[in-house]
Amino acid sequence: MTSFVFRRKLTVAWGDCDPAGIVFNPRFFEMFDASSWLLFEAALGVEAHDLTRSYGIVGIALVDAKANFLKPAKFGDTVEIASRVAEFRRSSFDVEHKLTLDGALCVEGSETRVWAVRDKNDPNSIATAPIPKEVMAKFG
Amino acid sequence: MTSFVFRRKLTVAWGDCDPAGIVFNPRFFEMFDASSWLLFEAALGVEAHDLTRSYGIVGIALVDAKANFLKPAKFGDTVEIASRVAEFRRSSFDVEHKLTLDGALCVEGSETRVWAVRDKNDPNSIATAPIPKEVMAKFG
Amino acid sequence: MTSFVFRRKLTVAWGDCDPAGIVFNPRFFEMFDASSWLLFEAALGVEAHDLTRSYGIVGIALVDAKANFLKPAKFGDTVEIASRVAEFRRSSFDVEHKLTLDGALCVEGSETRVWAVRDKNDPNSIATAPIPKEVMAKFG
Amino acid sequence: MTSFVFRRKLTVAWGDCDPAGIVFNPRFFEMFDASSWLLFEAALGVEAHDLTRSYGIVGIALVDAKANFLKPAKFGDTVEIASRVAEFRRSSFDVEHKLTLDGALCVEGSETRVWAVRDKNDPNSIATAPIPKEVMAKFG
Repeated sequence: MTSFVFRRKLTVAWGDCDPAGIVFNPRFFEMFDASSWLLFEAALGVEAHDLTRSYGIVGIALVDAKANFLKPAKFGDTVEIASRVAEFRRSSFDVEHKLTLDGALCVEGSETRVWAVRDKNDPNSIATAPIPKEVMAKFG
Repeated sequence: MTSFVFRRKLTVAWGDCDPAGIVFNPRFFEMFDASSWLLFEAALGVEAHDLTRSYGIVGIALVDAKANFLKPAKFGDTVEIASRVAEFRRSSFDVEHKLTLDGALCVEGSETRVWAVRDKNDPNSIATAPIPKEVMAKFG
Repeated sequence: MTSFVFRRKLTVAWGDCDPAGIVFNPRFFEMFDASSWLLFEAALGVEAHDLTRSYGIVGIALVDAKANFLKPAKFGDTVEIASRVAEFRRSSFDVEHKLTLDGALCVEGSETRVWAVRDKNDPNSIATAPIPKEVMAKFG
Repeated sequence: MTSFVFRRKLTVAWGDCDPAGIVFNPRFFEMFDASSWLLFEAALGVEAHDLTRSYGIVGIALVDAKANFLKPAKFGDTVEIASRVAEFRRSSFDVEHKLTLDGALCVEGSETRVWAVRDKNDPNSIATAPIPKEVMAKFG
């Protein structure tokens, strides 16, 4: 478990919610995706544009995602998302997200992502590459 | 594993895709959510409106969702989603979704849902209720 | 033209963008919708929940929306949205949104909304009601 | 007004709807965007991939969009969208969309789009190009 945690607050919008008046679940996966990018920007101290450019990657591609929905969040709620890398492996890593409302856990999310580059043999395909040591080091 | 399978085809829209030119992953969870509703409509032979009304439920609320992203789908691809209930328990059940492109598996999704009703003691809250036997029977 | 302006900044997420690498246009309408709600919360000094409850309305329902897309915004751009009520009428009003990037106008949006209540004769329908004078007064 | 009309039906999903139980308005702009692409595929007899490739365009970029929301559509409603090109100009054109439920008009949408190519002098920018005569001819 790395020590660098990225936190952000956001207010649930009308359009995030479904007829039950609560956040439509796939929106949480969108929030987690955005938080993963912001986590990397914050940890590495680069902007999103430079993240892909300076490391020569296509992105931090998602291969697996899951979430537990424990308590609903509704229109107007200001929630907090705390995100961190749970584990770095050679070319993949896990990100954990905890979404809370007034300190109570609402959604627990987890993603497995890969360090994705263009395939040298087929530029239309994506391959994985080893995560640079200096990248991992930034997460503590 | 129940035997009733609901299949539908859909064509990936421009707006479903991200800057990598492939479906933005949270969209798959939206597709699976829609397929779960359509699966119940098809199995029970009722329309969505009547599904909630005639069974006195708020919905089939999601408590857990996960997906593996094996192969990307891109703008214009016509994919097929096959959905079925993997297991019924007292008041919860699991739905499995397989999204394929030309027969090749792209995304495997799985949801745990509950049969959700208004809480008798607190109409602003949601409680679970036993799934009617005749509902389960319709899935084979 | 009222004088109260609500401004907020937001960073374009990966999932807001399409295969051209720029914000998928319907996302701007989502951003404007959220800004309209936040504008009302800020001007009236109430939370979204209380907005609907304390004024006995269903919402500020959209009847007309349009936008001009002048310059694209892309992944990682931090844009500003400035929103104000352009005109109040008896039971409807216009909201103007200007989305800028580094001071340059990217999108101009405009919405016509109505002060929406439950229809007394048909609780499943929506009717319009006169906008309270004290509501209008808060916008300057 | 061209004579070629593209029609499709779709069923409103749970996740398309907001806490008022009706389609969240920006979703209509997503539906219209998808219909515009499908209109071009149908009229030109090519797939989306080939549309961009064979004509050497980046896309049919949106510069202006508007919609009137006359009647709401709700979860489970099967609506029809009829789309046609209202006018072709040198390098831009207007698309009209009518979304109906049981024959009653719910939403009227209109888009202005341009035939968009990569800028020869700046491959990161987009320029407009004349719409080929044979393209216009296919719309009748």
